[in-house]
Amino acid sequence: MEKKCIGVDVGGTTVKIGLFEPQGTLLRKWEIPSRKEENGRFILPDTAQSIRRVLEEEKLSLADIEGVGMGLPGPVLPDGFVELCVNLGWRNMNAQEILSGLLDGVKVCSANDANVAALGEMWQGGGKGYRNLVMVTLGTGVGGGVILDQKIVAGSHGLGGEIGHIHIREGEKEACNCGGHGCVEQVASATGIAREARRAMAASQADSLMRRFGDSITARDVLDAAKAGDALALEVMETVSYYLGWALAIVTMTVDPDIFVIGGGVSRAGTFLTDMVERQYRKLTPISENKAGIALATLGNDAGIYGAARLILS
Amino acid sequence: MEKKCIGVDVGGTTVKIGLFEPQGTLLRKWEIPSRKEENGRFILPDTAQSIRRVLEEEKLSLADIEGVGMGLPGPVLPDGFVELCVNLGWRNMNAQEILSGLLDGVKVCSANDANVAALGEMWQGGGKGYRNLVMVTLGTGVGGGVILDQKIVAGSHGLGGEIGHIHIREGEKEACNCGGHGCVEQVASATGIAREARRAMAASQADSLMRRFGDSITARDVLDAAKAGDALALEVMETVSYYLGWALAIVTMTVDPDIFVIGGGVSRAGTFLTDMVERQYRKLTPISENKAGIALATLGNDAGIYGAARLILS
Repeated sequence: MEKKCIGVDVGGTTVKIGLFEPQGTLLRKWEIPSRKEENGRFILPDTAQSIRRVLEEEKLSLADIEGVGMGLPGPVLPDGFVELCVNLGWRNMNAQEILSGLLDGVKVCSANDANVAALGEMWQGGGKGYRNLVMVTLGTGVGGGVILDQKIVAGSHGLGGEIGHIHIREGEKEACNCGGHGCVEQVASATGIAREARRAMAASQADSLMRRFGDSITARDVLDAAKAGDALALEVMETVSYYLGWALAIVTMTVDPDIFVIGGGVSRAGTFLTDMVERQYRKLTPISENKAGIALATLGNDAGIYGAARLILS
Repeated sequence: MEKKCIGVDVGGTTVKIGLFEPQGTLLRKWEIPSRKEENGRFILPDTAQSIRRVLEEEKLSLADIEGVGMGLPGPVLPDGFVELCVNLGWRNMNAQEILSGLLDGVKVCSANDANVAALGEMWQGGGKGYRNLVMVTLGTGVGGGVILDQKIVAGSHGLGGEIGHIHIREGEKEACNCGGHGCVEQVASATGIAREARRAMAASQADSLMRRFGDSITARDVLDAAKAGDALALEVMETVSYYLGWALAIVTMTVDPDIFVIGGGVSRAGTFLTDMVERQYRKLTPISENKAGIALATLGNDAGIYGAARLILS
């Protein structure tokens, strides 16, 4: 029997775990709550215990496992050292060494969760079949992951793939979480799209489907209105697409991937969104017709466990 | 005796060639003219003949050579195929296969010249000792090269490291050679700096050391004036440094190298230039204090032969 692998996606609310065949078939997935008390010290023991229990139920032992990969919500140094995971309360620890110790020394690898999700989409998702991929995740924030030659580019200081914090917009007065002004995240995240809509409503007298939502408008409301042909919502989405397309153009001129994969909640708008982004991206890369296209992510919230499992096979 | 390697830098005017020890010592360098008649068909035979002659003079044979690396002025596909080298007249050929055939089948590798120069600076130049480096060459245009894990990131469509064609400046009316408007090259190349100075002089009534040069002002004149404390020239260089610093910030958020290396004629301005650029770069990357610094290239025009020789050792 070929050895199986396990992918663990550690988040601030739950730890998602998947048991995989090395070819990429997900055999079973489950999750446990992330116990954040006492600086999150129970999270790894809970995870180890849960893995042992499921293996037992599946009539497997740790010897049947090639290893455990883990995506973590923060920067991870090449040796697995974690300086800070704000959402978990972790500080200055090596999570992969600890989990390995709790699992009788089985091989454990770890990496940043956005990078791991990109690896998952490369393995079994929207980027399947490609070796070089850049994923952009449009959620509450904007995450990113650069994969070259099937490996994560974590960067020399853990900043690789931080597409959300590329400075892109001049004159932005509000500050981003990172301290910058005018990051991609500030205009293309769900939060950013909603803010852009509030600004557009305030600056215009025009009638709009968006007005019924007032200040509590969400990115989804904006996208629904834009799809329904609402002029003001379309204007907002043109602005969002312009900056996002520009960010992709920049990434193409730097690492020139095979393909871009767009994921996260905002990407549920589908090709309506990616077509708008692609038009802008193509306009800003006149140097060549031959360049990466844009695909949608397909694994949703499972990208993390897929990518984590794939870490073990690298 | 350890085998030696040869680096060839094919340019539109001359072919530069270097004979190296595998540890990186340059034993001998020379150049031959690039004969561009008949679509450059003599360039590779001339190069092969010249290599044979020098080896003979050095009492070496092709069997003493590990291989020949070659930098070419255009995009090079992973298998060595060259669609177009405008400056040489080459079209749809595999230069590395041809040169290998002319040299009794010795191993020949090739890559784009800007990427190769970056590899050279990593090996024995301003980025010596680092594995991850991004080079930006400020010459007539702006070239770039991304090196990760000691290897060139050529990109899936040959666009990797095209830092000069990152779109960065909104509202630029003039077109770049690539067809874009507002590329890094348009503001940070020697040509771009001179244009910026002409624009500044036209828009201002202020007295300036630059005025004596009129419309024939060069980047060097601008930098000399700025170093002498000329207010208008300093303003021009602040603009140039802002966009260049922004480009480095973008690259950090994408691949996060160990170090940036700045080369090309404009970089002769030294730390006066890189200090200005670094201030802007740091302002635009508030996310972390821990990030790549900026160094000056040290190999000058020899970066190409160094990097080409290093290709063979990859």
